[in-house]
Amino acid sequence: MIDNSTIAAISTAHGVGAIAVVRLSGDNAIQIADRVFISTSGKKLSQQAPNTLHLGFIYDDDVPVDEVFVAVFKSPNSYTGEDLIEISCHGSLYIQQKILELLVSKGARVARPGEFTLRAFLNGKMDLSQAEAVADLVASTSRSFHKVAMNQMRGGFTDEIKKLRERLLKFVSLIELELDFSEEDVEFADRDQLKQLVEEIETLLRTLVESFTLGNVIKNGIPVAIAGKTNSGKSTLLNLLLKEDKAIVSEIEGTTRDFIEDTISIEGIHFRFIDTAGLRHTTDKVEKLGIERTYKKIRQASIVMLMIDPATDTDEIIRSVKDIEKQVKGTDKKLVVIINKTDLLNNQDLDSLKKNILKIVDKEDKVIPLSAKKGDNLPELEKALLEIIHAENIEQNDVIVTNARHYEALKHSHEAILRVRDGLESQISGDLLAQDIRETLHYLGEITGEITTDEILGNIFKNFCIGK
Amino acid sequence: MIDNSTIAAISTAHGVGAIAVVRLSGDNAIQIADRVFISTSGKKLSQQAPNTLHLGFIYDDDVPVDEVFVAVFKSPNSYTGEDLIEISCHGSLYIQQKILELLVSKGARVARPGEFTLRAFLNGKMDLSQAEAVADLVASTSRSFHKVAMNQMRGGFTDEIKKLRERLLKFVSLIELELDFSEEDVEFADRDQLKQLVEEIETLLRTLVESFTLGNVIKNGIPVAIAGKTNSGKSTLLNLLLKEDKAIVSEIEGTTRDFIEDTISIEGIHFRFIDTAGLRHTTDKVEKLGIERTYKKIRQASIVMLMIDPATDTDEIIRSVKDIEKQVKGTDKKLVVIINKTDLLNNQDLDSLKKNILKIVDKEDKVIPLSAKKGDNLPELEKALLEIIHAENIEQNDVIVTNARHYEALKHSHEAILRVRDGLESQISGDLLAQDIRETLHYLGEITGEITTDEILGNIFKNFCIGK
Repeated sequence: MIDNSTIAAISTAHGVGAIAVVRLSGDNAIQIADRVFISTSGKKLSQQAPNTLHLGFIYDDDVPVDEVFVAVFKSPNSYTGEDLIEISCHGSLYIQQKILELLVSKGARVARPGEFTLRAFLNGKMDLSQAEAVADLVASTSRSFHKVAMNQMRGGFTDEIKKLRERLLKFVSLIELELDFSEEDVEFADRDQLKQLVEEIETLLRTLVESFTLGNVIKNGIPVAIAGKTNSGKSTLLNLLLKEDKAIVSEIEGTTRDFIEDTISIEGIHFRFIDTAGLRHTTDKVEKLGIERTYKKIRQASIVMLMIDPATDTDEIIRSVKDIEKQVKGTDKKLVVIINKTDLLNNQDLDSLKKNILKIVDKEDKVIPLSAKKGDNLPELEKALLEIIHAENIEQNDVIVTNARHYEALKHSHEAILRVRDGLESQISGDLLAQDIRETLHYLGEITGEITTDEILGNIFKNFCIGK
Repeated sequence: MIDNSTIAAISTAHGVGAIAVVRLSGDNAIQIADRVFISTSGKKLSQQAPNTLHLGFIYDDDVPVDEVFVAVFKSPNSYTGEDLIEISCHGSLYIQQKILELLVSKGARVARPGEFTLRAFLNGKMDLSQAEAVADLVASTSRSFHKVAMNQMRGGFTDEIKKLRERLLKFVSLIELELDFSEEDVEFADRDQLKQLVEEIETLLRTLVESFTLGNVIKNGIPVAIAGKTNSGKSTLLNLLLKEDKAIVSEIEGTTRDFIEDTISIEGIHFRFIDTAGLRHTTDKVEKLGIERTYKKIRQASIVMLMIDPATDTDEIIRSVKDIEKQVKGTDKKLVVIINKTDLLNNQDLDSLKKNILKIVDKEDKVIPLSAKKGDNLPELEKALLEIIHAENIEQNDVIVTNARHYEALKHSHEAILRVRDGLESQISGDLLAQDIRETLHYLGEITGEITTDEILGNIFKNFCIGK
């Protein structure tokens, strides 16, 4: 993965913009830039102070290509830790491409995806999980995911892991020292202190492993299934929420056979809404399949919204609420029962219906009357959704794992640390204990990049965008 | 058009990139940036030297939004001539939008399209034609258009116009002075010198007006019509040139009824290829319409390519070459006759066919044998197309008008200067002469922006992209 070539890439989004930035990093970055750039001041970039900006022209031999600003950063005080040049040019595709070509013709090489960040990692500017957070940050589209990525980029949970790992490393060294003196039956490593550390590590790892479910939700949006009898107004509500017409709204029963997913952002939190087929009793094969898929979608959701059409027979309503409640009970799913079409209902009937439903559902669940058709009471629904999520601590919780690679490594190190704990309990031999501790250390080291391979690095950075 | 507010915009292309740049310009740019940015050095941006770069964090109250580099430019040494801040952030859509929102919440206003460049013009950093060249530069996708735009941004033909305009301005002042002394019959303005200047201006304006045809071609690509008998292989050649399958290639005669246009770039020059319906004699109404449109397309083209199928009867070939030659003769169109399907022909027959065709066409026209199906001899065709264009001096000619607004103003000023010339010839009265000169001056001033209105500025800058 390591080479000394100077790399170049267009770092701004692909397309025509007012300006674009071409980046150049490596030992020869400044010299290569000096081969194509003539500063208005007449001075070479190599004579300039770091962190300064210079107006001038990029030339292709004697043909002016663009009037640009060049930023000069010098090793080690740059993003990559190397000498780094940023050329801010007019955002024409022709100019962007031409400048990149010129830099390559003067000795640079086109950068691979994420290669600037890879170099930042290799030069010790950030650890591996911070480098991965950079990619997450660039990809972040919601406030909650942005927050987790930003937290991770600033150190996040890996700071704590690094410290605990170092303490554990000392213990394993002592235990391994004991092995050298095995015939003398000495104990350099205080077993009580080790037990305490292992407990500490186990607690952290368990919390982190458990946070991944939430992390996944943050990364991909909170799945909300909309269930309910056919024609109860699910598509209308979905359309209202999406403020666009992606679902087919129809008077004919059973038209929403396909699942329509769309993500909307409420106060920076992404909700992934899944419209499901109706739960009508039917002999129609296609629709039956749809109902089975509805249940499946409910199982995958974090929040289930049940739409009630108050025109339905009350007994049937109660039955359907009980049906869904059964699906939700004992899981960490939350239920939101929506009494739709309130415009067709008098207050007394509505109150009585609401009371009946509240008797069935859990006290943390919500019952919200609204009219999807008229758009009434939508803010209350949005508020309810946010409250459910806040209860899950998305906003408060800083220690959340969103990265599948971290999750895998955390799971493995958690398994290993449990073996260490068991080993300490049953007083297994020092060499077996040391082996489990080494395994824990290995997986923890993979997260921060203290232990890494070209393959791991390759897999991580290939998913970055070019120019980062 | 003029206000003192501080404006902000995302200046890089829309989308996710490794980095994005948010720009801020105006009297309060630095103060507003200081309200959201905390430098790693601890120093405020207002304490920093101009043309320097600063690492730090953007904060939304106490929530970190991104780690960024901020570039500080100070009035008058900036693009806009005002204090200017460029925030280089991670290229997530969420972050870009969030930073823009923060700047607006701290006192900036979202910039209108082209408003940074408008301010550069209003602050005397560039003239109006240079400002327009900035937009052309950003939009340039071909080497030739880029060259014209770059030349114009660096002063271009307007430098000369400005000088001639100033000289003309002195003369009109002297003539108007004469009017004040009209009873004394004095002549402050040397008529011979004026005549000489008028000739000089007329020549330049005529050249510029004439260059617009070429300028248009550079801006939009050189139109090349591909004519020829149905099934002669036009679509195959077009596909070969486009290296993609946009035209329908079919064995059935007369399938290419719709005109397919596509632009390809040969060594940085854009050619706009127009596939035309075949020229077969037909009674089919739809196809007849197609043939009429073929002739129309030929009239609009700069280059006409005639495809010959050598399997056709020689007399018919000769007739079709003569047909097209008639369309081209006396115009500045160039003809390229392509003898296709050379793989089905022996050398002797090919030579004889080529000789016969060369007898008909102009000596500047080209005859090229190739096999579109096999992809033979394509480089010779590309070379021929480039030679034709080089003969038209696209590459050599620096003084080319590509802007329709400039063309209109140049045409009007040319008409006015011709009246001045005629007036000098026929010794019209000083007041009439002054009036025509004033009109010339007015239109010339419109090009450079020495004379302008809010309406003109509005029309020009509304077509810019946001953030420029």
